Amino acid sequence: MPAAPVSAVPTVALHPTLPGPGVLVSLEATAARRGLDVLALELAKLRELVLADLAEVALVLDEREPPERQVARAAHHLLDLGGKRLRPTCVALAARCGDAPDLVVRDLAVAVELVHSATLLHDDVVDLGDTRRGAATPRAVYGNAASIFAGDWLLVEALRRVRATRMPDALDGLLDTIEEMIFAESLQLERRGKLVPDLDTWLKVARGKTASLFRWGMGAGARAGGLDDGACAALEAYGEELGVAFQAVDDLLDVAGDERATGKALFADLAEGKVTYPLCIALAREPQLVGPLAGAVESGGADAALLAELRAGLVRTGALDETRTFARARVEAGKARLAVLPPSRARAALAAVADSTVKRWS
Amino acid sequence: MPAAPVSAVPTVALHPTLPGPGVLVSLEATAARRGLDVLALELAKLRELVLADLAEVALVLDEREPPERQVARAAHHLLDLGGKRLRPTCVALAARCGDAPDLVVRDLAVAVELVHSATLLHDDVVDLGDTRRGAATPRAVYGNAASIFAGDWLLVEALRRVRATRMPDALDGLLDTIEEMIFAESLQLERRGKLVPDLDTWLKVARGKTASLFRWGMGAGARAGGLDDGACAALEAYGEELGVAFQAVDDLLDVAGDERATGKALFADLAEGKVTYPLCIALAREPQLVGPLAGAVESGGADAALLAELRAGLVRTGALDETRTFARARVEAGKARLAVLPPSRARAALAAVADSTVKRWS
Repeated sequence: MPAAPVSAVPTVALHPTLPGPGVLVSLEATAARRGLDVLALELAKLRELVLADLAEVALVLDEREPPERQVARAAHHLLDLGGKRLRPTCVALAARCGDAPDLVVRDLAVAVELVHSATLLHDDVVDLGDTRRGAATPRAVYGNAASIFAGDWLLVEALRRVRATRMPDALDGLLDTIEEMIFAESLQLERRGKLVPDLDTWLKVARGKTASLFRWGMGAGARAGGLDDGACAALEAYGEELGVAFQAVDDLLDVAGDERATGKALFADLAEGKVTYPLCIALAREPQLVGPLAGAVESGGADAALLAELRAGLVRTGALDETRTFARARVEAGKARLAVLPPSRARAALAAVADSTVKRWS
Repeated sequence: MPAAPVSAVPTVALHPTLPGPGVLVSLEATAARRGLDVLALELAKLRELVLADLAEVALVLDEREPPERQVARAAHHLLDLGGKRLRPTCVALAARCGDAPDLVVRDLAVAVELVHSATLLHDDVVDLGDTRRGAATPRAVYGNAASIFAGDWLLVEALRRVRATRMPDALDGLLDTIEEMIFAESLQLERRGKLVPDLDTWLKVARGKTASLFRWGMGAGARAGGLDDGACAALEAYGEELGVAFQAVDDLLDVAGDERATGKALFADLAEGKVTYPLCIALAREPQLVGPLAGAVESGGADAALLAELRAGLVRTGALDETRTFARARVEAGKARLAVLPPSRARAALAAVADSTVKRWS
């Protein structure tokens, strides 16, 4: 079989001259509105850095796997879907709170995005997901097998990057973090379809699945920047709070977001049997909501009538507001941890990143 | 949901007091027949070591993941299926050609078996495999998701083990090897269902998918044993030859093995659209065999009539003999590489391991 032409691999979305990832664009807009020109410039530079690095990753992937294209295409497909690039941004900002070598920051930032991408590739197979970020998932296009192997591959590439930094403990920390993520996925898997309001489990899953990688990225960036233990711990705690807030907002968008903006159908998590944060609150306050919720799980989604019923329940129980309040509290707690650091543009940017997380719903 | 009782996790098969893995038992029998009592004793000790180490891994896995059992059970299920433990045996013997610290040998031997197990967990999802080693696959029992995450987990544990040895380059080498394995899987995936006799591709896949891990294990063991570059290179080459021979014999057993001994249905590889070594030979010599082969792929297996037709074709074209000859040549080439090492019990055992590979068909 002739190898597919190289041009068939779409890599343009990673090119630094194209519009950047959403979170940075909105951060820059926020910074500009507040008259923080220096910060806006800093963020623009950061965006260039992150995008250029990810474009470079795409090129390296091409070099390593030229003829056997199936897995490479699945990997590219996922990376090209873009996304917010929030994790590498956090790593870079943590490093900029100190004074880190550019190459080390680059490797850590790329590694954190690759680990995230690897989990998405495996998650899509687990969830049988067909769309992500408004486009077809790699597994829908190239099949489950390519998606699994592409995830394995990006994981290997991520570990290589961290290894290249020669930072003591960074690799051990990342391996621990990946294990935490797997255990959280395992827990979520077991609870799937069990429609009980259990915030402890929700928090455990959110911490393991989402917050642990933010935490590792912030800690690794801080250590690369030469910060002392207190500052590193503070930035790790910031990462943990940000990750939990991020998951709560993700959950909120699943039940009350704009499908065009999120790129996925409403109540998609529920259709997979996942009790998200707002559903947890609503179910605790009105146990009889279990009926319509079970209906949505069984039919693999909510039709117009069910959608209206669930939405009304979420508003009536105050679950949406409660989720917003929870996310905002996590963001404020995260920002408070930044106080131990001396004021700097990077610190201000981290505060802005935290704020932008809860702004996703507005 | 209450956690499943711990006793539900079957770990007995890993316990050192139970009968050992097949390859070592038959090696000991061979050694005893030849009057090599010392070697038999050595191999018996080696078996204890490998089994005890894998039992310890099972305990460590239990400690790390107590409450969320889904992924842990999938991992245990695969490890408990046993298998030949050929890879850790090779690592231990390579290390015994020199003088390696026991703890390092243990970590490397366990790591190589965990990587192998991780690939089996992911392969079963890719191939939709329902039986392996004569029992239900983890994916059939615990689902695709648990099998994917369990594979990810064992990979992380393997990398941790190698990291613990503090051997320079061992981790980089293993990451490179895992990447090679992924690329080979990718290539095999693309060729699936294409019934063309292409020995170059067969060799590429066998080298990447099977031989690369043997090669890495032998090299890592040799380096742990403090052997010089020439000896390390020779043992790596032995690993490469052994891996290719092993794959050829595996392919032979798929078309002409004893289903009770192999634990899987005949022509299972063909049903997955894979052109194994003997099929490659047969197809090159009798292109019209493509008809019955395509029939077996389409119906997902061969019925009695098709089975008889395919078997007759394999005998008529000499494909079975050719495969045996090829495997034997690889084994002899591997044994020849051992000549640079001074005579030792470990070297004799490696020669016996190589011989036992081609004895699987008798």
